[in-house]
Amino acid sequence: MNHIPMRMNAPAVRPQKMTRRALAKQQTREKVLQSARDLFIERGYEGATIRDIARAAGMSTGAVFASFTDKTELFDAILNDDFAALQDPMQDALVNGKTTREALVGMFGAAYRAHADQLPLIQAALAASWTRTPEAERLRRESLRPIRALVIQALERGVEHGELAARVDLRLVADMLWDLYLAGYRPAAFDGLSVENQTERLAQRIDVILAALKA
Amino acid sequence: MNHIPMRMNAPAVRPQKMTRRALAKQQTREKVLQSARDLFIERGYEGATIRDIARAAGMSTGAVFASFTDKTELFDAILNDDFAALQDPMQDALVNGKTTREALVGMFGAAYRAHADQLPLIQAALAASWTRTPEAERLRRESLRPIRALVIQALERGVEHGELAARVDLRLVADMLWDLYLAGYRPAAFDGLSVENQTERLAQRIDVILAALKA
Repeated sequence: MNHIPMRMNAPAVRPQKMTRRALAKQQTREKVLQSARDLFIERGYEGATIRDIARAAGMSTGAVFASFTDKTELFDAILNDDFAALQDPMQDALVNGKTTREALVGMFGAAYRAHADQLPLIQAALAASWTRTPEAERLRRESLRPIRALVIQALERGVEHGELAARVDLRLVADMLWDLYLAGYRPAAFDGLSVENQTERLAQRIDVILAALKA
Repeated sequence: MNHIPMRMNAPAVRPQKMTRRALAKQQTREKVLQSARDLFIERGYEGATIRDIARAAGMSTGAVFASFTDKTELFDAILNDDFAALQDPMQDALVNGKTTREALVGMFGAAYRAHADQLPLIQAALAASWTRTPEAERLRRESLRPIRALVIQALERGVEHGELAARVDLRLVADMLWDLYLAGYRPAAFDGLSVENQTERLAQRIDVILAALKA
């Protein structure tokens, strides 16, 4: 059984024929998303108001609210785009990693690299993740599911190749790795750790976990 | 060498003879802290204003500002008290734990228990920890240092007793355990996990880490 899945990401959907109205609406949405992303990175989540975002996008606050109910929805849309964008580089790292270690370090390293130029946005997301509603937390976990599946696959492949012993629930191990990966944004945010050092630091932690699973 | 330290916590300093003025000032400070704690738990950090806190304490906002520069300083004072309060129960668990596992599970379980009735405060603290200044982060780490030292001691004792092999830097392992402990507040906050289940969940993760260190 081959655990490396086909690329099953939906292609960026953009219907060939859009009404002028629908096209304008989508362009507005994208302009809002880009302005919001820039401002969240510059000022953090609390620091950027809908009014600022509208001004930066060159439109009225009403036009922003036509696309998004509130700032939370706008923020989540940006984060969902970012998590979806991790899928491809992480899957490439999984396919290219010759060992479990190489796959895992490559996957999480690719994620760190993808976020390196927008650390304040990630910090704001991690902060917000602690004080959201249970429903928002449910959606957050939902959007992370495909990436979690890739981490589990990397571990399963290690077991299949006789590299790891499955004496522990691999989902438990995947969740530990994920929590350690997230914690790894802290030294990047506060100590200015480079992506390379951030990845090397996580690699040391991955080594501890993999030692527990050694076949 | 005995790694279990003497109790070296400073006793709660309350000089025998205080001027009436100093006593009043301290009482004000304690009243503000209690009101702020209650409101942060009830409404979260963003939701509680200095004005609300002053009203709940039955004083003017000016009286609050006489004790604390701003809401951040007030919040940090509460959190520092809480971390200082973890020291004793965690040290007891370390002393009473017959194995490394028992010590670690007991220590972190004691911390979870201490925070069980103020989860929203902990969530607000974890959120705030991602978006503070580097200086605030430095102070946060400073205040955690004694607890981190206890975790390292539990691991060192395991090595001394021949239970663990020190093939990995024990500070690295202690930091992993700490990050996993913090991540363990998420299911408590969002899935209503009881303290017992929260502790059991962390125990499973501790088992993975200890398997890597098995002598």
